Amino acid sequence: MKTLRIDPDRLRRDFDQLSAIGSTGDGGVHRPALGDDHLAARHWFRERIAADGLAFHQDGAGNHSAVLRSRTHEARTLLVGSHLDSVPRGGRFDGALGVLAAYEAVRAVRDAGLELPVHLEAIDFTDEEGALVCLLGSRALAGTLDREELEDPRCGRATLDDRLHQAGLTHEGILGARRDPKTLAGFLELHIEQGPRLTSAGAAIGIVTSIVGIGSFSLRFDGRADHAGTTPLDARRDAGRGAAALIVAANEIVERDFPTCVINFGELTLAPGAYNIVPESADLAVEFRAPDDDLMRALETMLLDLARQQADRYGLDLLVRPQISIAPVPCAAEVQSAFEAACQDLDLSYRHLTSGAGHDTGAMASVCPAGMIFIPSSGGSHSPREHADRDACVAGASTLLQALVRIARRTR
Amino acid sequence: MKTLRIDPDRLRRDFDQLSAIGSTGDGGVHRPALGDDHLAARHWFRERIAADGLAFHQDGAGNHSAVLRSRTHEARTLLVGSHLDSVPRGGRFDGALGVLAAYEAVRAVRDAGLELPVHLEAIDFTDEEGALVCLLGSRALAGTLDREELEDPRCGRATLDDRLHQAGLTHEGILGARRDPKTLAGFLELHIEQGPRLTSAGAAIGIVTSIVGIGSFSLRFDGRADHAGTTPLDARRDAGRGAAALIVAANEIVERDFPTCVINFGELTLAPGAYNIVPESADLAVEFRAPDDDLMRALETMLLDLARQQADRYGLDLLVRPQISIAPVPCAAEVQSAFEAACQDLDLSYRHLTSGAGHDTGAMASVCPAGMIFIPSSGGSHSPREHADRDACVAGASTLLQALVRIARRTR
Repeated sequence: MKTLRIDPDRLRRDFDQLSAIGSTGDGGVHRPALGDDHLAARHWFRERIAADGLAFHQDGAGNHSAVLRSRTHEARTLLVGSHLDSVPRGGRFDGALGVLAAYEAVRAVRDAGLELPVHLEAIDFTDEEGALVCLLGSRALAGTLDREELEDPRCGRATLDDRLHQAGLTHEGILGARRDPKTLAGFLELHIEQGPRLTSAGAAIGIVTSIVGIGSFSLRFDGRADHAGTTPLDARRDAGRGAAALIVAANEIVERDFPTCVINFGELTLAPGAYNIVPESADLAVEFRAPDDDLMRALETMLLDLARQQADRYGLDLLVRPQISIAPVPCAAEVQSAFEAACQDLDLSYRHLTSGAGHDTGAMASVCPAGMIFIPSSGGSHSPREHADRDACVAGASTLLQALVRIARRTR
Repeated sequence: MKTLRIDPDRLRRDFDQLSAIGSTGDGGVHRPALGDDHLAARHWFRERIAADGLAFHQDGAGNHSAVLRSRTHEARTLLVGSHLDSVPRGGRFDGALGVLAAYEAVRAVRDAGLELPVHLEAIDFTDEEGALVCLLGSRALAGTLDREELEDPRCGRATLDDRLHQAGLTHEGILGARRDPKTLAGFLELHIEQGPRLTSAGAAIGIVTSIVGIGSFSLRFDGRADHAGTTPLDARRDAGRGAAALIVAANEIVERDFPTCVINFGELTLAPGAYNIVPESADLAVEFRAPDDDLMRALETMLLDLARQQADRYGLDLLVRPQISIAPVPCAAEVQSAFEAACQDLDLSYRHLTSGAGHDTGAMASVCPAGMIFIPSSGGSHSPREHADRDACVAGASTLLQALVRIARRTR
């Protein structure tokens, strides 16, 4: 048997070819799901698989796989992959690197002649970013996608059906893409970190402990519009002051008491909105993320208590409208430990962290042991400037390969 | 000589008649300057003066007066009045009550057969509220209105010229309305308070010590748009957080250290404006008012220092764009003391306060001894709900009359 290792040059070659598809000329790519450039990227992947002599598989949700079948009787399937679609004018690493690293890992197993007791599938999931339906491919495969979401998608029914038609997909096909969880040995994913923690820590690999939960609220403070020249400060009911006090206090408390969580006040509108009129109302959009259910609840309670306190303090009425609520998803302990062992074998520094963004791993974790690693990336997220060094990509792909083999070998 | 006193019933009758002109049916009036309803109110005032047998005077700026001439050789003129125009859908007391109280005071002097060493003029100034040009009439009379303001007014040249034409006024006429300050003995004004201080203090009369100065800035904080799920709080450059911290801190400092001043953050816009994106920029509109030059400077310095501190603290860039800058205007000490003596004579409670809004008194103070009183009013400002009790109106008109006589008698 040949040495089991990924081929950095082959990985780089594939990555450069793929990055040219839908290139925006500034280092980024524009490949929204099932648009022309995404379909071209899918075509390239299919041709690559064929040229490399691996089996190709496509399911009813358009998920693409390179398949390396095991000779073991009734082997289960270990999936490894990510997605080839991008946000509009996004970066070339997000998703694409995960598909290619998975594909390279599967090729490395094949090239080494390594016989594993699981089928391997390097998979490209459809529409992770949600141009049509968020996590369409991975949730279809996991069986957690509702028929209603296809009938009333956030992109609009006509857009969805038009794109599906162009790609030769149907609602029935998507809903039929579910696989029996008993056939799945697990799911592994490599992704760039979409934040600065690994770079700050000087770590090569981030082992994700959970995909954070997301809660959001639309908050409205109602006060009174007064003449700002003639109304003393202590006689006002200034909705803007209440909103500002909430922003300041909530950020300070999260920073101090919730170090594994984040909060963001992304929108704020004051009305009527004039230099000389005390704000009558303040509409505030707040989102928070936490790595487990207890912290989600604690964070939500803190936030709403604090909002009520500010309302009382400034004589305001408070209206709370819940928006989204997505539960945190822990990554499988066995997958985390396989990644740890791989890092130790490869002498790579690592740290545990949470994923602040949603990923296909989150969808897969509901049906099989799933986990993911991050590699350091600079230049922000969902941006043409996002960048992972060649060495970081190679270290990540190597870790993915080693962990894949470990999990495969202990799968029954 | 008959007793010198105002006639409450006559004042009320005039007020009710005037309030019907441009009535919005909800207690308010709609009389923007030189619009049909304002012209109708002016016509009513002219007819009222004629019916009462007083002399009528109109100058080139459309200022209307009821004139009671003195027999004294080379007497100067003591002006007393306010304005008949309103903001769009405003209240029926703002301005109008001041004109009618002044007119009633002049009638009372005439009816009492009181001979004073000054000519008295109960004046209705044109466009105090600035539908066309802010304080047009009083500034024209004071000679502080620039020709340029007529050529490039904030309402647009075409609108101004159209309205002037309808009212039979011209640019040259307006600029020619200036009176030689040597001919002016002073200016007195009665106005509703446009805030809650008199009501809170339980005082019948507010003696205005100064018309506050107004400064305003457009402030922009620039940070960085990051993914709100993946970027830890301490790695962000959150423009919204900087703006909120400024709002909180500036309000607290003004409340604690600048009790005679006010500040207002009336507009705030966060961009790009999404639940899951850390605000890259925050555009903030701030206005502040102070009763004298020293406080204006101190307040401005405090505000800009504080904005820079928040920018430094949150890693933001700060852009400061000055907007308006209006100097504070002190009211004449001799006019204030005449109002004090009048209150004492009438056994009315009073307190000194600043005017947080601009008034014709501010324009007149640059050329003659000028001052004003407030009477308590509820229901806000520039609102159909604004309301002053009948007793408060009578107390105010009586105070105006007594102060007018005191000032007239000591004028040489």
